[in-house]
Amino acid sequence: MIRMAMTTQAKKRILIVGGVAGGASAAARARRLSEDADIVLFERGRHVSFANCGMPYYIGGAILDRDRLLVQTADGLKARYGIEVRVQTEVLRVDRARKLLVVRGPDGAEKSETYDALILSPGAQAIRPPLPGGAHPRVFTLRSLADMDAIKTAVDGLKGCRALIMGGGYIGLEMAEAFRARGLEVTLVELSGQVFAPADPEMVAPVHRRLRDNGVDLRLGVSVTSLSQADNGLKAALSTGDELDCALALQAIGLRPETALAREAGLALGPSGGIAVDAHMRTSDPSIYAVGDAVEVSEFVTGNKALIPLAGPASRQGRIAADNALGRDSSYRGTQGTAICKVFDLAVGVTGLNEKTLKRLGRAYEKVHIHPTHHAGYYPGAAQMSLKILFDPKDGLLLGAQAVGLEGVDKRLDVLAVALRAKMTVRDLRDLELCYAPPYGSAKDPVNCAGFAATNALEGDVRLWHAETLPPRPDQVLLDARTAGEFAAGSIPGALNVPVDDLRARLGDLPKDRELLVFCQVGLRGYLACLILSQNGFVCRNLSGGYQTYQATVSSPAASERR
Amino acid sequence: MIRMAMTTQAKKRILIVGGVAGGASAAARARRLSEDADIVLFERGRHVSFANCGMPYYIGGAILDRDRLLVQTADGLKARYGIEVRVQTEVLRVDRARKLLVVRGPDGAEKSETYDALILSPGAQAIRPPLPGGAHPRVFTLRSLADMDAIKTAVDGLKGCRALIMGGGYIGLEMAEAFRARGLEVTLVELSGQVFAPADPEMVAPVHRRLRDNGVDLRLGVSVTSLSQADNGLKAALSTGDELDCALALQAIGLRPETALAREAGLALGPSGGIAVDAHMRTSDPSIYAVGDAVEVSEFVTGNKALIPLAGPASRQGRIAADNALGRDSSYRGTQGTAICKVFDLAVGVTGLNEKTLKRLGRAYEKVHIHPTHHAGYYPGAAQMSLKILFDPKDGLLLGAQAVGLEGVDKRLDVLAVALRAKMTVRDLRDLELCYAPPYGSAKDPVNCAGFAATNALEGDVRLWHAETLPPRPDQVLLDARTAGEFAAGSIPGALNVPVDDLRARLGDLPKDRELLVFCQVGLRGYLACLILSQNGFVCRNLSGGYQTYQATVSSPAASERR
Repeated sequence: MIRMAMTTQAKKRILIVGGVAGGASAAARARRLSEDADIVLFERGRHVSFANCGMPYYIGGAILDRDRLLVQTADGLKARYGIEVRVQTEVLRVDRARKLLVVRGPDGAEKSETYDALILSPGAQAIRPPLPGGAHPRVFTLRSLADMDAIKTAVDGLKGCRALIMGGGYIGLEMAEAFRARGLEVTLVELSGQVFAPADPEMVAPVHRRLRDNGVDLRLGVSVTSLSQADNGLKAALSTGDELDCALALQAIGLRPETALAREAGLALGPSGGIAVDAHMRTSDPSIYAVGDAVEVSEFVTGNKALIPLAGPASRQGRIAADNALGRDSSYRGTQGTAICKVFDLAVGVTGLNEKTLKRLGRAYEKVHIHPTHHAGYYPGAAQMSLKILFDPKDGLLLGAQAVGLEGVDKRLDVLAVALRAKMTVRDLRDLELCYAPPYGSAKDPVNCAGFAATNALEGDVRLWHAETLPPRPDQVLLDARTAGEFAAGSIPGALNVPVDDLRARLGDLPKDRELLVFCQVGLRGYLACLILSQNGFVCRNLSGGYQTYQATVSSPAASERR
Repeated sequence: MIRMAMTTQAKKRILIVGGVAGGASAAARARRLSEDADIVLFERGRHVSFANCGMPYYIGGAILDRDRLLVQTADGLKARYGIEVRVQTEVLRVDRARKLLVVRGPDGAEKSETYDALILSPGAQAIRPPLPGGAHPRVFTLRSLADMDAIKTAVDGLKGCRALIMGGGYIGLEMAEAFRARGLEVTLVELSGQVFAPADPEMVAPVHRRLRDNGVDLRLGVSVTSLSQADNGLKAALSTGDELDCALALQAIGLRPETALAREAGLALGPSGGIAVDAHMRTSDPSIYAVGDAVEVSEFVTGNKALIPLAGPASRQGRIAADNALGRDSSYRGTQGTAICKVFDLAVGVTGLNEKTLKRLGRAYEKVHIHPTHHAGYYPGAAQMSLKILFDPKDGLLLGAQAVGLEGVDKRLDVLAVALRAKMTVRDLRDLELCYAPPYGSAKDPVNCAGFAATNALEGDVRLWHAETLPPRPDQVLLDARTAGEFAAGSIPGALNVPVDDLRARLGDLPKDRELLVFCQVGLRGYLACLILSQNGFVCRNLSGGYQTYQATVSSPAASERR
């Protein structure tokens, strides 16, 4: 039993810099561990512990009461936790030798504050690249309540105008929905070939479609080169040469860790530019901890250091830093990057590593795609989702997972996130015993089905092929195992059609001297066809995810670049 | 790599008895493993592979097209898998010495069929206790499509009448909703003090309320003693002495494994009465496998043999039996009993062991209850759920979990089901990195929060008390840490009220020579109060789940029996 002897603990003074997510968690945890400690929280803004993830929904009107975003107030923290909160207070520097902070309060006066332990939770700031016209007052970022209020005020005065969003990450996507909900036209420009970078290109094809279906003018592989004053707002020049009039612009191209204070104090930064910490969230100075978006974490699968700014991990890190600051041994076990984003009625999310990263790292992997319904197909409202699983081709260890769809996406990602954390293999996924009743799932849950598909590949029952390897080599033949009707409605150019149910009778029509690249709609009939073919002496592979994954793959600009 | 050398496999004849769930899975898997095998499936009913879990929804009208329930047909299995399906065929006996089955087909003729491997998937039948009048044609059970059609026909002719349901399990609960949806009055009698036996009494208190709110006349601790013909249907005599008129009655008190064929063949049955099988789903005869509701499985947490009839496990067992029958080594890893039931708009479910079972087994455990919202509270539509975690009081190993609520219940149960399967501890639950965006969860997910609450108890940061230990001993004092307004609206009889935010200032009002039984609404403020108290020299415990769990506990008849 790990239990701190609280009564023998000397009275400590804990200073915390930054009052959102990690900082607020650290402060509350510190008090829970010690009634004696002096705990002071410094926050540059006017509010502590506000729900920054809720800001797009307040601007969009889904959340009507602004006060709902103020999760905890300075007075509340004082009353419940006896924590001194100093808002509108800038921490100017850390004097590590004398263990004190120099701060400037709302009155402008500088003051010094000593500490026994210091916990830094400075967060990250929106990247504002040096863009001509980027300082125009109608160009916003969204990190603080002040940002939110400014955007809301601007939008409240508009109707039928255009908002320009730069960047297709969480904020860009959520704000596209918010601006549409407020009746604005929306153009979203994204420099890369896809939105939602944590996922692979073929997995966001449905997101691109959903954005466009909801009236978002999505421009991929495009950037804004300059902004300038126009009659009714801004004129944006794009990398394509196009010009665009808009009433306001939002820069949401990414985050940069707030490391100035740490750097100036001489604390070590890591290779990715975040504050370096050990598993106890301790910086290179043993009296100073750092947590949240400003720190470098160990990525769970590889152990590599990385910047992974997420609210859940920030909150956990705050608790762990407070534990260690107050003498309780507690370790952070890495960030796996579980994340989800709502894009209109679609959800898209990931956990673990994506294929882009695995490729970049040169890590061996195999992948499967499936397209199951989120609950029993015969029960009303069944919605199809797409699920991608990345795994070690030798031992089947789960490396990452992605999902996109209308319903049940968060559930499958959470299941896969736990499986990944538990270092399960794809074989284990087959055997997971999940909730089943027709309104909630299927006797074979999508996660089980992903396990089946992956294990079939892992054990060599079927060899897979993937859509990005097209076109076929001369010694390969494409074989569409769907029905004649499906084939007629659209297939991969050059494919033969032999429906799986006719296959046993038509084996004589097929060449034994060429590799058959089999496919069906989602991968199941193709798998059955391959089992029939391979047991009859044919050489064959099944297209993972079938024609549906093929379509998603070829629709992505990233795929066409690849070829 | 486990890979069967398929081409060296002698041509085998595989007979399968029972064409639903386990049997259909076994047949399809057998074909996937071997194009050569003769595979014959015998089914007593008219249909194979029908969606029996969908039947209540067809009767209730949520599913309109009956054909949707016919997942796979005999012709379909023939065309796709080359499986011979013999419907309306009764398997009369197994001649193990000669390795043959004697069957009687739809024409009444008896025939024998030889096998190399036999897979039994006979299922379970509804228990019909010897009830006077129980054979009346208006007394139904619901196991087959024929049962479903009979009930549907009966209901189609009714309006404004009463249906009597005996038994508050899955079928009883789903049919209560179905009958209400069809405009019938519903009385549900359940012999025990609670519906949905897999959960503990306090966790189904919201289910009881939901049933009554939806007009179900729920009678707990009551049984039907006889049924008799009445003018317009049936008259039911109840154990309370009451009489009840109803148009039809449904017996849904439980299932009994169909073991007659196995027993008569001399196959070993287990202590719980199911067919005994090893991890390969092999019976006491090495050529005979058995799967599904008729077999005894190893319960995952204890390894004890048990009957746990569930669709997911049945399907997995079918696959595993086929693997072994065709020479591929494959093992079943036990059933943890993950289950969920929709009751109107409420979901209730479990995974692992419940408290009733832990008590019966004399297994040491601790428990926590929490009542979080299913996603960020500030995002519209946040619904509160109740979550119960059972864990080992020494090492924190997760033993079981239960949840009930309107939204997000299936997700948390699935997460906990994976954690249990991975043998995680409550400490691990704290660190699970789950999907977070305001529409889907919170930075601290309900599962994380359950991990916090349980770890706090495990590590001795706070000692818990539970509502069933009331009334307090003379050396104990009840302390309500909620606000004066909450206290005034109702509290536990005899409690003092000191709001947590006033506690530090009012420590002098509290006795140091008595144990303080602290509570709040859901457990969080009580925890904070206990930390303040214990660090100031008081002896105290916090009520797990707070006043809300107290109310659920005292509302259950099981609780009043206990006292």
